[in-house]
Order: sequence, then C-alpha cells, then structure tokens
Amino acid sequence: MTTLIPNPAADLTHAHLTNADVAQLDTRSVFHSWSAQGALKPLPIAGGSGSVVWDHDGKRYLDFSSQLVYTNLGHQHPKVVGAITEQVQQLATIAPAHANETRAEAARLVTERAPEGFHKVFFTNGGADANENAIRMARLVTGRDKVISRYRSYHGNTGAAIVATGDWRRVPNDFARGHVHVFGPYLYRSEFWATTPEEESARALHHLERVIQLEGASTVAAILLETIPGTAGIIVPPPGYLAGVREIADRYGIILILDEVMAGFARTGEWFAFDAFDVRPDLITFAKGVNSGYVPVGGVVISDAIAEAFDERVFPGGLTYSGHPLAAASVVANLTAMAEEGVVENARRIGTETFGPGLAALAEKHDVIGEVRGAGVFWAVELVADRATREPVDAATIGRLKAALLERGLLPFTADNRLHVVPPAIVTTDEAAQGLAIIDEALATL
Amino acid sequence: MTTLIPNPAADLTHAHLTNADVAQLDTRSVFHSWSAQGALKPLPIAGGSGSVVWDHDGKRYLDFSSQLVYTNLGHQHPKVVGAITEQVQQLATIAPAHANETRAEAARLVTERAPEGFHKVFFTNGGADANENAIRMARLVTGRDKVISRYRSYHGNTGAAIVATGDWRRVPNDFARGHVHVFGPYLYRSEFWATTPEEESARALHHLERVIQLEGASTVAAILLETIPGTAGIIVPPPGYLAGVREIADRYGIILILDEVMAGFARTGEWFAFDAFDVRPDLITFAKGVNSGYVPVGGVVISDAIAEAFDERVFPGGLTYSGHPLAAASVVANLTAMAEEGVVENARRIGTETFGPGLAALAEKHDVIGEVRGAGVFWAVELVADRATREPVDAATIGRLKAALLERGLLPFTADNRLHVVPPAIVTTDEAAQGLAIIDEALATL
Ligand SMILES: Cc1ncc(COP(=O)(O)O)c(C=O)c1O
Ligand SMILES: Cc1ncc(COP(=O)(O)O)c(C=O)c1O
Repeated sequence: MTTLIPNPAADLTHAHLTNADVAQLDTRSVFHSWSAQGALKPLPIAGGSGSVVWDHDGKRYLDFSSQLVYTNLGHQHPKVVGAITEQVQQLATIAPAHANETRAEAARLVTERAPEGFHKVFFTNGGADANENAIRMARLVTGRDKVISRYRSYHGNTGAAIVATGDWRRVPNDFARGHVHVFGPYLYRSEFWATTPEEESARALHHLERVIQLEGASTVAAILLETIPGTAGIIVPPPGYLAGVREIADRYGIILILDEVMAGFARTGEWFAFDAFDVRPDLITFAKGVNSGYVPVGGVVISDAIAEAFDERVFPGGLTYSGHPLAAASVVANLTAMAEEGVVENARRIGTETFGPGLAALAEKHDVIGEVRGAGVFWAVELVADRATREPVDAATIGRLKAALLERGLLPFTADNRLHVVPPAIVTTDEAAQGLAIIDEALATL
Repeated sequence: MTTLIPNPAADLTHAHLTNADVAQLDTRSVFHSWSAQGALKPLPIAGGSGSVVWDHDGKRYLDFSSQLVYTNLGHQHPKVVGAITEQVQQLATIAPAHANETRAEAARLVTERAPEGFHKVFFTNGGADANENAIRMARLVTGRDKVISRYRSYHGNTGAAIVATGDWRRVPNDFARGHVHVFGPYLYRSEFWATTPEEESARALHHLERVIQLEGASTVAAILLETIPGTAGIIVPPPGYLAGVREIADRYGIILILDEVMAGFARTGEWFAFDAFDVRPDLITFAKGVNSGYVPVGGVVISDAIAEAFDERVFPGGLTYSGHPLAAASVVANLTAMAEEGVVENARRIGTETFGPGLAALAEKHDVIGEVRGAGVFWAVELVADRATREPVDAATIGRLKAALLERGLLPFTADNRLHVVPPAIVTTDEAAQGLAIIDEALATL
C-alpha cells in the first residue's frame, strides 16, 4: 500500500485558485481525450449559469459551445440541480436489476417524446455505448452482421462505435468487423457531382442502395445515421434523403438507427431532430441533451417490434450503471423543465429569428464564410480560403479565430475549418445577438 | 412533436408507492440488461444506508451483493452524498477539454494509491470503456493488434470489452478482431490436470506462453486480466501466477493490463487487489469501488512510460463525460472517506476474522459447498451436486437459495452455481456474522 501524500493544493479553497493553478493541477494528473498530452493548455472553468461560464480569474464567457454540445438546458439549471440534490439524499445508486421509480419515470418521459410505437428505453452511460447497444439489437433481430454508416459521422469511442464512425478517429481504431461506410448528401462538397439539393439527395440514395446491393442486402443489419451529422459539420439532410433511406431500409429488411445524441432534445428546435423530417427510425440513440450532461447518461429508445423480440430471448448486453438513479433524476428534471419552459420552442425561434438571418448577414459580409447551415441552436459556419474553390481555411486561421473569440468573451466550438454556433437551447435573443456581434468582430480580425 | 400525456403515477409520492407499483412502472418502460424482458420480476429498492437496503413495502435487507459489487463504501455515505451535493451546486458539468480542480484532485488521489511510476488518469464512464481505452493505448504503443484475455472473465459490454470477455456473453457479440482467449489457473476445475496450486500456476503460465508463441509474440499488444476474476468466480490466483505473467509480458514486450474494476478499492482488503501479489501492471483499469458507484465513472491509471508515449502523439480516444465533475467529486470523497475510516483495513479484517473462518465452517457443515475462496469482502461459495465429481448445482437450486436468502432479509449475488459473498467493505463484524447465519440457514433448506 502506498502512503498518502497530502495534497499541496488541498487547503486552498476554490476561490484561491487561479487559472494557472488549476491548469497545472489538471495537466499533472489528467490524461486528455483526442490530444497529444505534451502541449495542453486547458481553460479552467470555475462556474456557470445559463448560457454563461466563468474562469478562475473572473473572466466571463458566453458559452457558444454548450461544452461538447450538450448543456442544452444551460448551466446550473435550478430544477436539475435540485432534482440531483434530492435524489442523492434519497438513494444515490441502485443496480440495474432492481426497480426504481425515478428510472421508470425517466424512461417514460423519453418514450413520450418519441413517435408512436416506442415504449422502452435501455439506459447507458453515454452516446458511444448507446450506439453499441443499438447495433447489438439490430444484429440480433436481423441475424445479420453489417452496419452501414457515413464517412462524415461520429458515433463514439468504444469498439463498434468508433468503427461505425467515419472520420479520422476511426482509422487508428479499426478493430471491429462488419462496418461499411458510405458518402452522405453534402451539397457544398458533393461527392456526387450534384448541383441541386434534390439531385444530391437522389444521388446519395442511389449510392447507398448500390452499396447495400453490392455488400449483399441479406448481410446488412443496420443503417446507422446521425439525423443531422453534428461534429462532421451540421450537415442538414436535403429534401427526401431521410425518407428515402427509410424506404431503402424497408425494402431490404434493414433496421434504421438514428443517432440523436447531439441533435436531439431541443438542439434543432425539436424534441428529436427527425421530427422535422419525413422519417421514423426503428431505434433512437440519445445522450447529451436528454439531461444536458449533468450526470453521465445515454440510451436507446426501442420500437415495440424490436423490444418484443427480446421478450423471450435474453438480450446479451448490459452495464453496471444502466439506469443510474442520479442520471434518471436529472433526465426527469431536464425533460420536465424543457417542456415547462418552452425550451424546444425557444431554440426553434432563435434559429428562425436570430441565427438564420444573422448568420446569413455575416456570410454576406465576410468573404471567408463559404456556407452557413443549420436549425435551432445548431449551426455551422464553414470558413474557406477561396469562395470559388471552397478550399478550407487552414488550422492556423481557425486557431486565430478561436483566440479572437475567447478574447472577446465567447467560448467557441470549432471543428476542422468550421465554427459551430451551438449555445444552450435556453439562449436568449439578446445573448444570441451578442454572440453574433462577437463572431462578426472576430471574423473581421482574420 | 408528440403531446405529453400526464403520468398516472406522478402525483404519488415515493411513500405511497408499493413494490408492485414500482415493479410495474419499471417493466413498462425500462429495458433490462442481460435478460429476457418477458418474465422480469425486479425487486424495487426504496432506500439504503451502509450495508442495508429496504424495499417499498418496508422490508429490510442486508446488502450482501453491494449491488453489482460496487457500493464498497456502503449506501448513502454522508461524505459522498455531501460532496456530490456541494459539487452539483457549484458546477455540475464541464467538458473534458477544460481544466477542473475536482477532476485533477480525483486523478491525483487515484494515482496516489497506485504503485510508483503512475501519475496520470484517463477517466471514462464505467469499466467497459476503461478497458476499451486501455486496449487502445496498448495497441498504439506496441504497434501490435492482439489482446489475450481469459475465458473466465468479464470486461464490459462494448465492442472490444465484450470480445475480450471470456464468458458466454461474448458469444453473440463476437464482432471485434484481435482477441485471443486462454485458460487461467483455477485449481478446483483445472484445465491442466494439476493437483497442487503450484502445479496449476506453472501449467497455466506454460499454456499462456505457448499461446503467445503460437499466435506470434510480435502480434500481441496486451495481456488483459482481472487481478482476481470476479463474476467468473472470485478465482484467487495461485502463488507465482501473476508474477509469472509479468515475466512473460516483459519477455515478449507485451503490455500488462490489470482490470481492477471489481477487485479494486477495498474489495479484497487492499487499495488494488494486485497489492497483495508480486506483480505491477502497465495499465490499471478501474470503476465501481473508486466512488462506490454513486455517479457513473471509470478510468485507466497510466504508467509514466505509456503516458509519455502520448506526449507528442495524439491519443485517439475520448468521450463526452471524461472526468465529469460530479463523478470526480464522488471519487475524491469516496477515496478520502475510505482512507479516514480505515475501510481497506476493515475489509481485510472482516475477511481474515469473519468470512475466512466463517465460510470454512459452513463448508464443513454443508455438503453442497464444494469450495470457498476469496479475500476481504470478496468471497465465492461454490455449490456442487456432488463433492466428488464437483458437478455444479443446477439453476433451480440456485433459485431456491436466492429465494431463501431474500426471505430471511439478505440480498444475494449469485453467478452460475455460486453464491458470492460481497457486502460493502464497511460491513461490521456483527453484520458479517448475521449474513453468515442467514446463509447457514438458507443452505440448510436446500
Ligand atoms: C452524434 C454522436 N453520437 C455519439 C457520440 C458519443 O457520445 P459519448 O461521447 O457520450 O460517448 C457523440 C459525441 O459527441 C455524438 O456527437
Ligand atoms: C472486472 C470487470 N471489468 C469490467 C466491468 C465492466 O464495467 P461496467 O459495467 O461499468 O462497464 C465489470 C463489470 O461488472 C467487471 O466486473
């Protein structure tokens, strides 16, 4: 047994810690995601409220990242904080095999927001294991192996989820079998030589169907798609695409899994992003917005047909914290608060009235903007070195933009050559406008 | 958007709910792990304190399961409840890329309990993704693919973790490549025709080395072992086995990952179960006991050599809730309370003074006990239909035992033909003795 060394910082109260202190404590002991560890400069966050966070040196930021696009109800919402506080006093944890009324209520509230014909939820700890378990269900009910997903996608970091992922993060992690990737519709950078949204949609569907036929339709268990690919660029599907995918899935007996981890629960101005499209999935995966990330949780909403397939047959998946009461309490409070406070409608209104027109105006003004797209509080601003060739700006330009935004008090979310405009869904019109003004100023410095 | 239907049970307070109410609410909306959903009879748990839980009908149970062997500090420990309450008021959540002093302190406290040469922690949401990320690290630093683990093991339900798992749960989920399984030492049911612990150890090592040689040592990235296989039967390694594995790993340049998810943090009467053995791993995976499951969390403790390999190189793994502040606060409080209250020592003492001799006495008395083995508060009682042939009792017998234990107010953990005696590590001598008396009575009814 190791002797326990007193912590040099332990007697400092939070108030005494500076940004430099916290960054140092962090990088000494914490190994960070998706990074080289040698050159980390993590920004310490001391607290937050609504759409605002602040650091240990007293600087305030408009949180236009929602962290990793998950604090949909904003920071420190009193109802969610209250529900977690109450639940932890009553019963912090209980194993999945037991019954718990908070867990049951969380599941019911999630299914209530789903279309007809969804009555069961399998809870996980996050988005990755939600996708793992949805893939498991699809394979078991179809008796088939393959999962088709898009190159432009992210589905999580575990064994199957990372190989379902299309982006660069899959490449060093390619140790699962049965995954096939297709190109999705993305007119701004079309893989199909299309010139209109309708043409892009039709050609992407043709491509999907050809891949299914040539892989052998009888080997394909699932099509797994983010309803609106998020980290990959908030790529809103063109008219007819998702309905076409549903038709193809039906034609070949394939399960359609829609990943709503980032897009769901008010982000797009809908409960589920697919509510705005003419499509109904067989399985819905969720995390993030379902409880705004106050406690780790995710899950799968299961259509009745698939749930019933496991009435007699053992479902061979599970995890220690499935349906954790603290997570469940936060889901109940988050979904209730969203409904009571009209958060879905707020996100929709901000999208229509502020971000839509406001970002279009910025695109008019700044040549560096190649395209703007999105809905609700889920927008991508694609930055290009040349509007004609659409060549992405380089990493250094994005680095300068980030610095300019942070300096002006806006916490940004960037990915590749894009700025994602993704504040909490409770963002006010004033805050949204203020954020746009900061972005305008920062773009002018480039 | 779906219209929201009022919940028929929403106006019932917890006090009004009966077991039957909660079980019905649960099975209507919650999809359960590792089960057929048609015949679920989940026991509702209304609350808990220390080693005791109670249901909604007022019946109390000694929790000899620690739920899924994770409430090492017992239910509703005031310091952990208090720390979560405090953290949620201050800052419930923040993304992994930021720095946070609670997260840093949690990481430091974990590494402080590890051997020399471990200074960094990568946090995950549970045990499965801890193993996923440890496997990822091993593959990247060695440039090799294969992971060797035992048939008698459980490592989690995600893509790679479930295929590293040796038990039946792997079989329907076998979609990852690069996994090889070996037999481990288990003298009571030896695969090596051994008759002494030393012989079992030597032969299991020979077997492991032969598999490595024949798989091609240059293809093997990692050996992944539960220090003491838990769900597989609390199979304490015989003398020399773990030290021998370390030697073999070194000889062939293989990373040794010890999975301490179930065995770690006081369960065996040590901080890490491997502290009682002559072995030091390269990577340690943890979850469960690290915070007694009050908030979902897990992680990898990383040796300096492996951490440094990612100083310049990007680590291609990550998850939204890595280092979640609420989880971190619970880790800090749990580890601090364990140290202050001598919980590791208590578990060791209960093992030596109560469970060791007490279970040996039961084995003397009840012919149905084939073997008893364990340490601390981590014991397996193997039940056999015939002591000579060691034929396991059937599922019906285990069902009757469970019912007899529940009736007498003991919440049991059973697996295959075994009763696992796994109360919280804060169990008192009286409670431990009371549990043994109940087990004695229940065994007599068989
Ligand atoms: C669409 C989508 N799916 C899945 C995930 C994975 O979720 P988690 O990080 O909780 O595992 C993410 C995370 O960003 C995501 O955006
Ligand atoms: C040894 C071991 N490793 C890993 C796991 C998986 O942990 P989780 O269920 O948190 O994913 C378990 C769970 O029981 C375990 O016992």
